[in-house]
Amino acid sequence: MSKIAIVIFDDFTDLDLFLMWDLLNRVKVEGWSVRILGTKATHLSKTGMSIETHGPISDANDADAVMFVSGSGTRKCIVDNEWISQFDLDPRRQLIGSICSGALILAKLGLLDGLTATTYPTVKASLESFGVEVVERPFVAHGNIATAGGCLAQQYLISWVVENLADKTWSDIILKSIQPVGEGLFFEDAEQLTKLYAPQISAKTA
Amino acid sequence: MSKIAIVIFDDFTDLDLFLMWDLLNRVKVEGWSVRILGTKATHLSKTGMSIETHGPISDANDADAVMFVSGSGTRKCIVDNEWISQFDLDPRRQLIGSICSGALILAKLGLLDGLTATTYPTVKASLESFGVEVVERPFVAHGNIATAGGCLAQQYLISWVVENLADKTWSDIILKSIQPVGEGLFFEDAEQLTKLYAPQISAKTA
Repeated sequence: MSKIAIVIFDDFTDLDLFLMWDLLNRVKVEGWSVRILGTKATHLSKTGMSIETHGPISDANDADAVMFVSGSGTRKCIVDNEWISQFDLDPRRQLIGSICSGALILAKLGLLDGLTATTYPTVKASLESFGVEVVERPFVAHGNIATAGGCLAQQYLISWVVENLADKTWSDIILKSIQPVGEGLFFEDAEQLTKLYAPQISAKTA
Repeated sequence: MSKIAIVIFDDFTDLDLFLMWDLLNRVKVEGWSVRILGTKATHLSKTGMSIETHGPISDANDADAVMFVSGSGTRKCIVDNEWISQFDLDPRRQLIGSICSGALILAKLGLLDGLTATTYPTVKASLESFGVEVVERPFVAHGNIATAGGCLAQQYLISWVVENLADKTWSDIILKSIQPVGEGLFFEDAEQLTKLYAPQISAKTA
């Protein structure tokens, strides 16, 4: 069993949910489960899309991997003590990661204390205000805690999760599957790709 | 006014809608409008996400740019004569593009007759069955018709639309805004990025 939780909130960045969500759902391994968690049945993205959640944010506490997305909504999350207090995450037993301003939530939870991290350029100063040393890199991992900066850097984060919870073969093929044709993905890869589009082995929602 | 239509259907590839949708919504130009069109109030993505549409597919006929997403659902679209017959597109007055298997719809509409095109590796043979010469490239444009292959090749397609309907400055900054930090996007870009996150100048939906 590998349970992956993606935490969203109102005003999240659309692409930062959907790149992760789509790619993580391409892994077809028995017991692999990806769920979107929130405080409401639906959350509104930054562009106004209504996206359904699969469970409450407290379900993140039992997941094998917990991913925090980004968006202007993170600024409200980190000053909402009731929201923050629902998390009881533990990097000794969970992979915990963020894309862009999701790093603010990791910082607020104390998970980046004494660590370096990365984030979106417009978020650097806010993240530094938590005492975090912010480095200009796409992906920074310290043990089971990782931050990524810039939407497409989700590829590093996804690869890290999939290598840890499935294997490098799955990680390589799902990342290859989204590359531009002729630039990382080739017509001769067609047969190898079919395993990504097989029916899901287990239900995605509990 | 620049009206962009993104056509979806059941079983579309999540990332192929959301990369386009998110990035096109970052352009803040007066009269810029991006709408998702379908035959129902909501369509289910390949992973089972319910996504709201903003209008019927026939609205594509009045758009300045019409983008077809991909996914296994395209196979049903191209054999559904009622669905196909609702389009009255014209490359003399519209930009028309596709990502991955969306090219099958362009082919079915006769828009690729005599042209080269690209698509997803697993779709090559199907596209060739329409008499289209399929080339192993991320992006192929002939005048106002363009095809892209591999999810991340949407970047070329989006760039083409934004350069044509807005300008290269907007195209450059929205593409830069999603690159990994340290690999195309840098902390010094923070101020330049803020214009992407300003409120929308006009309503997104008509």
